[in-house]
Amino acid sequence: MEKVNIDDKLSLFSEHWSPKIVGELNGQQVKLARIKGEFVWHKHDDEDEMFYVLKGGFRMEFRDRTVELRENEFLIVPRGVEHRPVAEEEACIMLFEPAGTLNTGNVQHEMTKPVLQKI
Amino acid sequence: MEKVNIDDKLSLFSEHWSPKIVGELNGQQVKLARIKGEFVWHKHDDEDEMFYVLKGGFRMEFRDRTVELRENEFLIVPRGVEHRPVAEEEACIMLFEPAGTLNTGNVQHEMTKPVLQKI
Repeated sequence: MEKVNIDDKLSLFSEHWSPKIVGELNGQQVKLARIKGEFVWHKHDDEDEMFYVLKGGFRMEFRDRTVELRENEFLIVPRGVEHRPVAEEEACIMLFEPAGTLNTGNVQHEMTKPVLQKI
Repeated sequence: MEKVNIDDKLSLFSEHWSPKIVGELNGQQVKLARIKGEFVWHKHDDEDEMFYVLKGGFRMEFRDRTVELRENEFLIVPRGVEHRPVAEEEACIMLFEPAGTLNTGNVQHEMTKPVLQKI
C-alpha cells in the first residue's frame, strides 16, 4: 500500500504507445502512457476505457466526430465504439480499464502490446 | 460520450465530504470530492478505493501508519483496511471505486452520504 507519484512514474520511461501498469483495484488497472502521433483504429468489445490527460492534449477520433482533450480533462469510450487517439505533440495520459484490456482491442497490429510492464 | 473537464466540475460545488459522480465505466464510478478536516474511521469490506489528489494534499491515516499525499499522487486502499482521510487545508480529490460504494463504508455516521449527486 504505497502511494504513487505520477511524475516519478512518468520519468521511468520515454517510449510512445506503450502503457505501463501503475495500479490495480477491483479487477481494473491504472496505466500511464506517453503518446505521440496516430494510433490504430480499434474497439474493445467488452471494456469501457477512460482516458485522462495529465500533460499536453490529444484528440480522440471516432468514425463520426472528434473530441479534443486537454490537460485535466477525461473521456470515457464505451465498449464497442471504434476510436483512434491522435496526438500532434507528445501527451501523457492515465488510463483506467479492466485488467487485461489489450491496447489495440480487436485489431492485431505492430502497435499491439500483449504484455504490459508494471512500474 | 462527452468529455469531462475537472475544473468545470469542481466549480459546481463547494461542500466538503460530499463526493459527486462524474463518470461510470465497467461497473466503477469516478467521483470528485472537496475535503477538509477529519473524516470518520471506516473500511469497505468488498471494495478497493483509489484516491487521486487533484489540488492540495491530505494524509491518509491507517491504524499503524500515515501516508501523506500531494498533488498528482494517488493511493489505493485495499478492501478491508481501516482508514481515515484528514485534510488540514481544503483538497480536491478524484475517487475510483465500484458503483454504489458508500463513503463511510461499514460505519453509519452523520457524514454518510447514501445517495450521491451526478454532475
